[in-house]
This record gives sequence, structure tokens and C-alpha cells, in this order.
Amino acid sequence: MARAWHLINRPKGLPTDEDFALEDVELPPLADGMIRVRNRWLSVDPYMRGRMNDVKSYVPSFELGQPMDGGAVGEVVDSKAEGFSPGDLVLHMAGWRDEAVVPARAAQKLPDLGAEPQRFLGVLGVTGMTAYFGLLDVAAAKQGDIVFVSAAAGAVGSVVVQIAKAKGMTVIGSAGGPDKCELVRSLGADQVVDYKAAPILKGLAAAATEGIDVYFDNVGGDHLDAAFALARNNARFAICGMIENYNDPTPPSFRFIMRIIAARIRLRGFIVFDFQSRMEEFYRDMGPWVASGTVKAHETVVDGLEAMPDAFRGLFAGANTGKMLVRL
Amino acid sequence: MARAWHLINRPKGLPTDEDFALEDVELPPLADGMIRVRNRWLSVDPYMRGRMNDVKSYVPSFELGQPMDGGAVGEVVDSKAEGFSPGDLVLHMAGWRDEAVVPARAAQKLPDLGAEPQRFLGVLGVTGMTAYFGLLDVAAAKQGDIVFVSAAAGAVGSVVVQIAKAKGMTVIGSAGGPDKCELVRSLGADQVVDYKAAPILKGLAAAATEGIDVYFDNVGGDHLDAAFALARNNARFAICGMIENYNDPTPPSFRFIMRIIAARIRLRGFIVFDFQSRMEEFYRDMGPWVASGTVKAHETVVDGLEAMPDAFRGLFAGANTGKMLVRL
Repeated sequence: MARAWHLINRPKGLPTDEDFALEDVELPPLADGMIRVRNRWLSVDPYMRGRMNDVKSYVPSFELGQPMDGGAVGEVVDSKAEGFSPGDLVLHMAGWRDEAVVPARAAQKLPDLGAEPQRFLGVLGVTGMTAYFGLLDVAAAKQGDIVFVSAAAGAVGSVVVQIAKAKGMTVIGSAGGPDKCELVRSLGADQVVDYKAAPILKGLAAAATEGIDVYFDNVGGDHLDAAFALARNNARFAICGMIENYNDPTPPSFRFIMRIIAARIRLRGFIVFDFQSRMEEFYRDMGPWVASGTVKAHETVVDGLEAMPDAFRGLFAGANTGKMLVRL
Repeated sequence: MARAWHLINRPKGLPTDEDFALEDVELPPLADGMIRVRNRWLSVDPYMRGRMNDVKSYVPSFELGQPMDGGAVGEVVDSKAEGFSPGDLVLHMAGWRDEAVVPARAAQKLPDLGAEPQRFLGVLGVTGMTAYFGLLDVAAAKQGDIVFVSAAAGAVGSVVVQIAKAKGMTVIGSAGGPDKCELVRSLGADQVVDYKAAPILKGLAAAATEGIDVYFDNVGGDHLDAAFALARNNARFAICGMIENYNDPTPPSFRFIMRIIAARIRLRGFIVFDFQSRMEEFYRDMGPWVASGTVKAHETVVDGLEAMPDAFRGLFAGANTGKMLVRL
């Protein structure tokens, strides 16, 4: 019998144990075009918090009383689909569970880039694509730019730092606490700001004495406000996430938002799924970077399906450095 | 003896009578290349409020104890500059006073577009250019778009409404009170929202049942938040002004700012002076629109140099419909 995490309550603020239940699920029979997959790695991502609300958004809400889903890497154990055989490793969206029957067209065999399978949930997956297209396309960051990245020790942020350095940019990263700051420094960041040691505005002002050309926002709130304050003329902000606001009902306020006008700032929100058709371009750059060690994968691994809600909640407590993964 | 308004205190919040003084000024002798101008029309604009603060911005701060300046149209009364003769009407920046000696290269003879002289401070001047480039370039608004314009009875907003209609867009305008709403309707707006009758979010939600593609922001604060709430995918926001925040030290808060991500909203702040080199393009479109009545000039005229601080403060109390002007 397979087991899957179900959403049983819509969380208010940070989800609690009462919001989730791990339950047995009956797998459908293997019809033509389907594969049965035993999951090896499951992804937890901040965007899933939005899916727990009953609000129309760019991905559908999780339904109450139903299994949740999300990114996963698994091994094919049975196949009625051409081109898929037992032993194949696939990337698919039937996460939050140990085993699934999925249509083969909704699964992708892992490309041969000489990388560990779990990388395709991180630096070579949605996480890496978010960093890559957000920085280079949405923010149009280029050599010589001064780039500020928030949550720079996190899944997306740690990749942004490394891509920015590979492309000859000056990088300022923010992170919470000395250990994470040390990690960000080890990724190559030129300046690191510990937002737990002092207000981010103060820290950023000290680090960015010449201002910033680009802001890659994973945090929102005070981080975004500090970026408004320090933006140089024609600065570009890629708005990727606002993790500070996902569980907090207080509307964020901005002392420096008026600088949008004087500094001619451009903000653009984006969703990585809009760049799905450009995956080849991403693999072409990122594959060699990962293979050569130019971009290193940083992962925080939690073991066991039972631990998945904790792993998810840990994202909002800053429990992870790099990509948070659950290993089965 | 000429007279000029001086800034004698840096205002806190809304400027008071104690912040300004009308004083005699000695005009310099007329050197080569200079003209003496008797002002006929003076401009008051919200951006001047920022210049009263001691903060580095895109235009220099007014100096304490010194005359202020700003847009003006006047008549040349004496000239030592080639190409300028007494009787010529010129546009220049030595406003907030009755008479000035200015370098001829800092003055522009009014182009022959068959328009009243004061139009070059309004619909054919900086005000009109702000509306034109903000809507068509910064927000890249195009035929078929649903455009929301705040302060639609104001100087810039009233022109935005008319250009948008001339270009085949659907227009929703906000204004405060029934008279201004009636004016906005008369400009051709498809929907008008009275932000004094109900919270703007409620009014906009009722008017924009299909959402908005473009937001032309003159107001900031709750108007901007409502635009976040109602934005359709890939909406573009041209951030022109945030008059709600110019005199208010409370940082504005935003319940719906996270929609930047899900709806892939693009915000861009702009300063009309960046479009100075494209004045010909502006005259080419706007000249005929004004001549034919496609775009009508709306003006609120206050008489006398003495009344200028009141006229300026009136901008923040909503005393004007269309462009606020001081006639000498």
C-alpha cells in the first residue's frame, strides 16, 4: 500500500501537525501509457504554502482531504509506457508520497548530465531554473552589475550567488546567522549581510556603498524596502518570492517605495514555469557549470516520508542551507 | 524690482505659510546671451514637494533662503540673445516669480501649434509628456488594454484618460467626489470610481470586473494596492507619482503586493525628463490631438503671484481639476 500526505486543514499562518495526515492510498491499476514510480527524493518548496490556501493562483490549490503533490525524483518499478523501463530514474510531480502511478507524459527521464539524481530537484531543476532565468532574463543582470540577493544561503539564493559570480558580477548576499553567512561567503559572494545581527537596511547600506543595480528578491518585506533605499538609477528587481510574508497576515509596509520613481526602478514578478520552453538553454549553461564545480549543489537532506511536514515548515524557520530535500 | 517666492523652512508634512516668503530680488544686468522675461503663467506641480526636502533626488533640492524655481511661460521684454526679441513667448524654468533674467539657451520659444501659451505648461508641456510617455512607453499600453488611471481628474491623469481613449483602450479612472468623477466621465472614461465614496479596492473591484492590464499610478498607497489586487497576468504599472505619500510620514502598506509574483506584474518608475530628447515625437502626436479637440486641456487657474503657495498646497487637497496654473 502506498502512503501520501494529505492536506486536512487550511493552515492559518505557519502550518501545524493538525493540518496534515499521512494516509494509505490505493494505487490505480497500471493502464497503457502509465508508469509506477517508487520515489527516492521529494521536494519541499516555499511556493507550496500558497497552494495550501483556498485562493486562485498560478498553480491550483491543494484540495482538502486529498493527497498533495510536488516535485519528486523516483525509480520506475513497472511500466506500460514506451520508452520507460524498470530502473529508469524520472522527474515528476507526484511528490509528498512514497509511490505513485503517473502518466509517462507527465514524467521526464533524467537527462544524462553526469549529476546525482536529486540535483534535478535542486540546482538542475526548478530551483536552478528559477535562479538562472530570474537573474539573467527577468532582472537582465550583466557583467559588472552589483547584485543583491536575499536568502542567499537558501535553495534559489545560493544558486543566484554562484551564477552571478560566474558571470562577473559583484554580489552582496543576505543570510541569517554566522553559519549561513559563512556559507554565502564560501559561494563567492563579495559581501555578506547578516540580517539577524542588525536591521537589513543598516547592513545593506554598509555593504552596498555604491548602491545596487539588481535585486533578486526571495524575502519581500524589509529586505525589499532596503533594496528600494539602496537602488541605483535604472535598477532592476526580479521578484521571485516573499517568504517573509507567506505566513504573516500583517501587510508589509515600505518606507522607501517612492524611490521607484526617482531611481527609475523596474520590478518584475515571475514564475519559473513560464520559462519551461527554454529548458535546453538552461541545461546547456548549467550542466557544465555543475559538472565543473563552478556551481556547487548545496542541499539539506531530511530522511523519511514521516519527516516531510517538518522539512516543509523548516523552510520558513531557515532550517535549510541550499535546497531542502526529503530522502526516502 | 522683481519678486520671487523663497523657501525659508523645510516643511514637515503639508507646507504652511511659515515655509515661504515672497521677497524682492535684484535682477542681474542683461549680459550677452541673456533675456529678460516677464512671466505670464507659472506652474505648480506635486514633484516640487520633494524639492522642498533636503534629500538628494533627480532634481536638486530648493536651497533654504533662496528663490524657488519651476516651469513658467513668459514674454521676453528685453534681449541680448540672437533669435529672441521683445514680445516672444518663451517656456523656461524661472518660475515662482514675476520677472527673471535667464540664459536664452535655457528658454524655448513656444512652438507654433496654434495653442494658448499656458498649454505649454499643461497638456503640451511636461504634464502632457508625462501622460504620453508614461502610458505609451513606460506601461507600453496598447489598443484593447484595460487601463486604470488614478487621480484621473488631475493634471496628468486627465490627459492619460484622453490619450488612452484616442488609442482605443478601455479606461477606468478614479477621482474624489461627484464633480471630479463627472469630469472624468466627460473625458471619455468607460468607468469612474469615486475613492471618497468607498474604499478604492471595493470601487475598483466593481469597475474592473475583468481586471486591469495597465495601471498609471499618480497616487500610490491604497490605489496601488488595489491595482495589485486587480492586476491581470502580465500587467504593467507605470509609477508616475505617489501624491498620497508626499506629505505623510507613515510608510504605506500593501496587502496585495505578493500578487506581483503570481500575476507577473511589471512596475516601472519614471521621470519625464528622461524623455526630453523625444519632444518632437510628442508634439507630432499631441499637437494635432489638442488642435482637433481629441485631447482637451483642463485647467484650474489661480490669479496673482501672492496666491502661489495656496495653489501649490491645493494640489494635495485636490483643489484642482486638470492642470493647476497661476496667472500673473
